[in-house]
Amino acid sequence: MRSLFALISSSASSGHHLFSLLGSRCSLTIPAHQAFRRRLVLMDTSEKILRQAFAEKQSAVEAQGHAVRALKAAGAAKPEIDAAIESLNGLKLEKASIERQLQAAIGGGDGSLNRETFRQAVVNTLERRLFYIPSFKIYRGVAGLYDYGPPGCAVKSNVLAFWRQHFVLEENMLEVDCPCVTPEVVLKASGHVDKFTDLMVKDEKTGTCYRADHLLKDFCNEKLQKDLSISPEKAAELRHVLAVLDDLSSEQLGAKIKEYGITAPDTKNPLSDPYPFNLMFQTSIGPSGLSPGYMRPETAQGIFVNFKDLYYYNGNKLPFAAAQIGQAFRNEISPRQGLLRVREFTLAEIEHFVDPENKSHPKFSEVANLEFLMFPREEQMSGHSAKRIPLGEAVSRGIVNNETLGYFIGRVYLFLTRLGIDKDRLRFRQHLANEMAHYAADCWDAEIECSYGWIECVGIADRSAYDLRAHSEKSGVALVAQEKFLEPREVEKLVINPVKKELGLAFKGNQRMVVEALEAMNEKEALEMKATLESKEESPFYVCTLGKNVTIKKNMVTISKEIKKEHQRVFTPSVIEPSFGIGRIIFCLFEHSFYTRPSKAGDEQLNVFRFPPLVAPIKCTVFPLVQQQQYEEVAKVISQSLTTAGISHKIDITGTSIGKRYARTDELGVPFAITVDSASSVTIRERDSKDQVRVNVGEAALVVKEVTDGRQTWADVWSTFPHHSAGSAEADE
Amino acid sequence: MRSLFALISSSASSGHHLFSLLGSRCSLTIPAHQAFRRRLVLMDTSEKILRQAFAEKQSAVEAQGHAVRALKAAGAAKPEIDAAIESLNGLKLEKASIERQLQAAIGGGDGSLNRETFRQAVVNTLERRLFYIPSFKIYRGVAGLYDYGPPGCAVKSNVLAFWRQHFVLEENMLEVDCPCVTPEVVLKASGHVDKFTDLMVKDEKTGTCYRADHLLKDFCNEKLQKDLSISPEKAAELRHVLAVLDDLSSEQLGAKIKEYGITAPDTKNPLSDPYPFNLMFQTSIGPSGLSPGYMRPETAQGIFVNFKDLYYYNGNKLPFAAAQIGQAFRNEISPRQGLLRVREFTLAEIEHFVDPENKSHPKFSEVANLEFLMFPREEQMSGHSAKRIPLGEAVSRGIVNNETLGYFIGRVYLFLTRLGIDKDRLRFRQHLANEMAHYAADCWDAEIECSYGWIECVGIADRSAYDLRAHSEKSGVALVAQEKFLEPREVEKLVINPVKKELGLAFKGNQRMVVEALEAMNEKEALEMKATLESKEESPFYVCTLGKNVTIKKNMVTISKEIKKEHQRVFTPSVIEPSFGIGRIIFCLFEHSFYTRPSKAGDEQLNVFRFPPLVAPIKCTVFPLVQQQQYEEVAKVISQSLTTAGISHKIDITGTSIGKRYARTDELGVPFAITVDSASSVTIRERDSKDQVRVNVGEAALVVKEVTDGRQTWADVWSTFPHHSAGSAEADE
Repeated sequence: MRSLFALISSSASSGHHLFSLLGSRCSLTIPAHQAFRRRLVLMDTSEKILRQAFAEKQSAVEAQGHAVRALKAAGAAKPEIDAAIESLNGLKLEKASIERQLQAAIGGGDGSLNRETFRQAVVNTLERRLFYIPSFKIYRGVAGLYDYGPPGCAVKSNVLAFWRQHFVLEENMLEVDCPCVTPEVVLKASGHVDKFTDLMVKDEKTGTCYRADHLLKDFCNEKLQKDLSISPEKAAELRHVLAVLDDLSSEQLGAKIKEYGITAPDTKNPLSDPYPFNLMFQTSIGPSGLSPGYMRPETAQGIFVNFKDLYYYNGNKLPFAAAQIGQAFRNEISPRQGLLRVREFTLAEIEHFVDPENKSHPKFSEVANLEFLMFPREEQMSGHSAKRIPLGEAVSRGIVNNETLGYFIGRVYLFLTRLGIDKDRLRFRQHLANEMAHYAADCWDAEIECSYGWIECVGIADRSAYDLRAHSEKSGVALVAQEKFLEPREVEKLVINPVKKELGLAFKGNQRMVVEALEAMNEKEALEMKATLESKEESPFYVCTLGKNVTIKKNMVTISKEIKKEHQRVFTPSVIEPSFGIGRIIFCLFEHSFYTRPSKAGDEQLNVFRFPPLVAPIKCTVFPLVQQQQYEEVAKVISQSLTTAGISHKIDITGTSIGKRYARTDELGVPFAITVDSASSVTIRERDSKDQVRVNVGEAALVVKEVTDGRQTWADVWSTFPHHSAGSAEADE
Repeated sequence: MRSLFALISSSASSGHHLFSLLGSRCSLTIPAHQAFRRRLVLMDTSEKILRQAFAEKQSAVEAQGHAVRALKAAGAAKPEIDAAIESLNGLKLEKASIERQLQAAIGGGDGSLNRETFRQAVVNTLERRLFYIPSFKIYRGVAGLYDYGPPGCAVKSNVLAFWRQHFVLEENMLEVDCPCVTPEVVLKASGHVDKFTDLMVKDEKTGTCYRADHLLKDFCNEKLQKDLSISPEKAAELRHVLAVLDDLSSEQLGAKIKEYGITAPDTKNPLSDPYPFNLMFQTSIGPSGLSPGYMRPETAQGIFVNFKDLYYYNGNKLPFAAAQIGQAFRNEISPRQGLLRVREFTLAEIEHFVDPENKSHPKFSEVANLEFLMFPREEQMSGHSAKRIPLGEAVSRGIVNNETLGYFIGRVYLFLTRLGIDKDRLRFRQHLANEMAHYAADCWDAEIECSYGWIECVGIADRSAYDLRAHSEKSGVALVAQEKFLEPREVEKLVINPVKKELGLAFKGNQRMVVEALEAMNEKEALEMKATLESKEESPFYVCTLGKNVTIKKNMVTISKEIKKEHQRVFTPSVIEPSFGIGRIIFCLFEHSFYTRPSKAGDEQLNVFRFPPLVAPIKCTVFPLVQQQQYEEVAKVISQSLTTAGISHKIDITGTSIGKRYARTDELGVPFAITVDSASSVTIRERDSKDQVRVNVGEAALVVKEVTDGRQTWADVWSTFPHHSAGSAEADE
C-alpha cells in the first residue's frame, strides 16, 4: 500500500493535476464514453512522422540484420562482420528511441500508467472508507451496480441539496417526483422502445454478450498503442474507425469485426453478427402479464407528460422550468469504468419551456461575464483545443444558440465549480452536427476531465419542440401554450391548398405522400414553387417519403397569402434541458479532491479529500486531546451544540494519537476538527492548511457553522481568532 | 363545488376531527389494509340485539301481512281489515326505526358518507393544486402510480429532510444508498421470491385478475352493511371471516368464495380458484436473459447484505444503526385507496443492530416520560380500545419488549407529531401473535387514523437475528459481531455428542436427520433427555424432519457440561427495524392538516392546509398590496433576501385582490405572507390566526427565517412587533 502511494506522490508531489500534462489529447486515444466516439479524431502530425520513422527504422534494422547474416554466410572477415553488427546495434538503438517517443506521443506509455495508478489509489481509498462499494458484494456483486456507503451517501445528499438550492429554489422551478415504473406507451412515444439500443455480439459457443462497438474500439486502441509496426496509413485507418464508430450501421460494424478478425476476448471463439439490444429494464405492470412496462431510462418523460398541468400551475405563462431528481436505469450490455457507466443512477433534470420565438433570458446578464473553457464545434473540426471565451461573447457571436441556453451553461459552471470541480479540468463542448438529434437546435456537454479522460457529466440541450410534439401525437392531448394578443393581430398567412382530385389522377396510390409533402413546405419553398408555377406552369418537386422528384402542374395546387385576424398564437414550446449525471459528477469530484501528502515523520503518504464544506460528508470532528473525563464532557457539550445547529459531525473519544485521528478524518474529507485541550477553550484545525485557531468552548459550534454554511471563510476565522501553533498536536501525524 | 364544501363545513364547523365520532370502531367495519384483517373483529353488543330485533320485526311484518291478505280473502268486515292494516303499518314503522338504529350501529350510514365526502374534498384540492396526480394522465394513467407535483414534492422533500435530521443526524446513523435493481439470490435468501405473494383469482372468461381476499372482504362488508335482514348468526360468521381473512389458506379462501357464490365484480362471470401471485416486479439483468432480478420490495436488504462492512466502519462496535431512504416496488394485483396502496413508493428504513443480550438504550430516559395512545395485544384481544400509557411504564411492565424498541417508538411519536400528525389520531398498535413472523420478538405499528380508517404508517419490529442469519447461510459469509472479553471467561458449555455408529445401526437412512435433531436440542431439552437416559436407559425423541417419535438409547448420545475458556463471544446481532411508509404518512398529514373556513363575505368555504412551517411546501409569499413599481421593487428585494436565506417562497405581483391571493396560498398551506404596503415597512400574516404584525422591510426575511427554522414561534413574533389590524387587507377574503 505504502509503495503505491509513494509512487503517486513521487510522480506529482502536490497530488494536484496528476495527469494534466496529458491534456486534452489523451481523450482522443482513450475515448471514455459514447459521446467521444462521435468526434473527429485527428492524428497528431508528430505521431505521423514518428510512425513513418519507426517503420523506416524497422526496415533498416531488418535489412542490416539480413546483411549481417549474409556476411557471416559468405564467411566474410571478422572486422567486416563486426562493423556490420555495430551498425545493426546502432540502428536498433535508434529504433528504440523512436519507439519511446512514439509511445509517449500516443499516450500508451507512462501517462496512462500514472492515470491508472492514480485512479487505483483514489478508488482504494473510496472503497476502504465506504464512500462506495460494489452492491451485493457478499453474493459476488452485479456488474454496474454500486452502493453509496455512509460518507458517499452524505456527499450525494449534499450535492442534491445544493442542486435544489442552486436551481430549484433560486430559479423558482417546479419540482416534480414521478415513478420509475413507466408504461410502454410513454416510451414508445419518446422513441426509447424503438431506438434506445446498443449493438451486441454474442460468443457463438458460450453465448457471452459484448458491445460490438466496444470490441472494435478496444481492437483499434490496442493496435494503435501496442503495435508500433503498423504503417501510418493503417494507423490513420484505425483512427478513422474510432472517429466514425458511432455512425456505423449494424452491417458496417459486423463487416469491420470480420475484416479485422476480432474474436470473443475471453475464449477467442467466433462472434455472431451484431444485433440491437434494448437498454431498458423491462417488466410487466399488474398481474395480467399484458401491460409491458420499463424502468425509466431518464426522468424527463415524467415532466413532458405533465406539461399541461404544470403550465396551468404556472398561471398559463411561459417561460417556466420543471425539475426532477430521481433514479434512472439502463441495462448496459457490459458495464465498465466503475461509477461512470452503471445500470442504475441518479439523474437531476431540468426542462425549461420557452417560447421558440423568444429565447432571451432576463437574468443572462448575471452570467455574461463568466469566462471558462469552451470547445465550440468549429474548434473541434479544425483540430484546435478548448479555449476561454466570455459567455456573453459566445452568445452574442452566435457560438451558443441563444441566451437561455447560455444562461444554463453559466449556471452549470457555477454549480460544478462551487462543488469543488477544478475549473481547469472542466470544459463545455458543443455537439458536432452528426452527434445531435435532427430536431435539436444546439447542444453543449459539461465535460470533466478525470483519469478516464473527458467525461460528459451534464448535457445542456435545446431540444426544440420534439418531446412535447411526440407526446401530443401519441396521446391526442394538445401540449401547447397560448400567447393572447392584447388586441387582435392581422396576420399574413401562407395557405397551401393541394387539389386532391388532380393529384389523385396524376399520382394515384402516391397521392397522399405528395399532398403531405406539399403541405409541409415552408414559406420559402412554397413561394419559390408559386413563382415557378406561374412562370413555367409546372415545377419539379422532391417528395422525401417517395425518395424521388415528381412534377407538380399549376392545376394541382394553389398557393396564396391571406390576411387573417388572430386573437392568440398557439404553439408548442421549445424545451431547453440541462441533465445532470449525479454519480459521474461525484466520481469526478472525488478525483479532483484527492491528494496525498507525507506524514510528519515522512514515513508514509497520507490521503486527503479537499472537499469544500458544502459537500464534505462530515463537517467537523470533536476530539478530546487525551482521554480525560473533563475533556470528554466538554466534547459532548460541543457535540450537542453542533447537532442542534444541524451540523453533521463525529466525536472520537478513543485514546488514539491526535495525529492519527486527524489523518483518519482527512481521508474522509472532514474540513474542520475541534480539539478539546482545556476546559475553557478548544482549537479548531483546518484540514488543508493544518492551521489552528483557539476559540472559547461556547463559540466553537457557531464558528464552525459560520464557515460550513459559507457565511465566513477560513481566512475570516484565521484573522479573527488567536493562532495556535500545531506543536505537539500534529507531531505524530 | 361550493355545495360540496358547504356540506363538509356544516357537518364539522372547524373542519377538525370530521369523523372522530366514528372513533376506532369504524376500523373494525371497514378494515383499511392488510394489518387490520388480522385483528379480532368483535361484534358490538348493541348491534347483536338490533339485528335480532330487526329479524323479529321482519317476521312480525310478514306474519301481519299474511294475516291482512287472509282477512281480505275471507271477505272479513272492513273495520276488522282496517285494524289489521293499521297494526301492519305500526309494525312497519317500528321496523324502519330499528333499521335506522342498526345502520347507524354498523357505520354504513352517515358516518362513512361524511368520511367519503371529506376525503373527496381533500383529494380534489390536492389534485387541483398538483400536490399529487395520477401518473401518465394523458395516457389515461396506470393504477397505483402517482406523481408528486410541485407542492407535494416540496412537502415530501421537507419530510425526508426532517427524517434525516431527526434520525440520521441526531442518532449518528450510517446512511447508505443501494440500487433498486436486485439480483434474485438476495431476495431468495430474504424469502421474498418464495413468499412475497398475494392470492389472486381470475375472471374465467375475460382473464381480469382480482385479489381473492379483497373480493371476499368486499362481499362480507357489503352483506353486513347493506343486508339488514341477515341473522345475527350469519353476521357473526361474516365478521369472523373478516377477522381470520389473513390466516385463510388458498383452499379455504377458494371454498368461501364458492360457498358465498362470489363472482367477478364487473361481469358476474365465474372465478378461478385462488393462486399465489408474486408481488415483485421482475426483470432481467444484463443482456443474456439468464440473470433474473427484481425491483426491491423494501430497502432493508441492501443494509443487511452490507452488515459486515458497516460493522467494520463503526469500529467493530455494537450497537449501531444504518438507514436508507429510497424507492420500493410492489406489483399490486389491483391497487386502490389512492396514495395508501401504490405500486411504487418511498420507504425510509432504519436497521438498528444490537447485542441480543443487551437491548438497553442509553437515551431511553429522554423519551420515557412521553405518554400517548398505545394499543397492546391484551387490550385488542379483550376488545378494549387504545389507551394512554407512559412509555417508561410500557417498557418496565414488559408491554414493550425492550428499551431500544421503546426508544424508537418514542422517537417515531416525536417525528410524526412534529410533522403535524394529530396526536389524538395516532396510536401504536402491537402485533398479535398471529400477525408476527415466528422469529420476531415484538412488533408495533404506528397507525394514523384517516378517512380510510387506521392506517399502518410506520412498522417498528424487533426482528431478532433472522435477516442476518438468512444472508449468512445463503452467501456463506459470516454476518456476526464479536464481543472481546477483557479477560478470558470460563464458560460452562453444554456438549451434545451423537454417537454416529450406534445411530447408524439403529436408524440407517434416517441417521442424518436424527443426528441433526439431537444437535439442535436447546439446553433444557438436552438436560431432560440426559436425566431420562440416566434413569430409564432410553428416551422417546420427536424428530420433526421425520415427523415422528424415535427411541434414543443411552449408548447413542453423550450429553455433558464442560468448562471452557473463552476469549470472545461471537454472535449474530438482533435487528430492530423502524420502517416508514413516506407516502402514507404524507397522505395522513394532508388529511390532518386540511380544514375549511368561510370567506369574509360568507358566500363560500375556503380550503386551508395547516402545515407547520417545517413541512409547508412554500414557507412564505411576498405580495405587493397593489400594482405599483415602488412596492414591486421592495417585494423583489425581500424575495432576494429570502432566497439568500434559503427560504422557499413565491412572489405574486398580479393585481388580484390581496384576499384572493391569501386564499390561494392558504390552500397550499403557506404559513406566512409578507405584504408590501409601504416603502419602509411590511406586514407579516400568519395563515391560521390571520393575525398580522408590522415589520421593517430590512427585518422581514429574518423574522420569517426565525419562525420557519423553529427558533421562534409565531407567539414570539406576535409579542415582539406592533400588531396590524387586518382592515381592508382581508376585507374581500
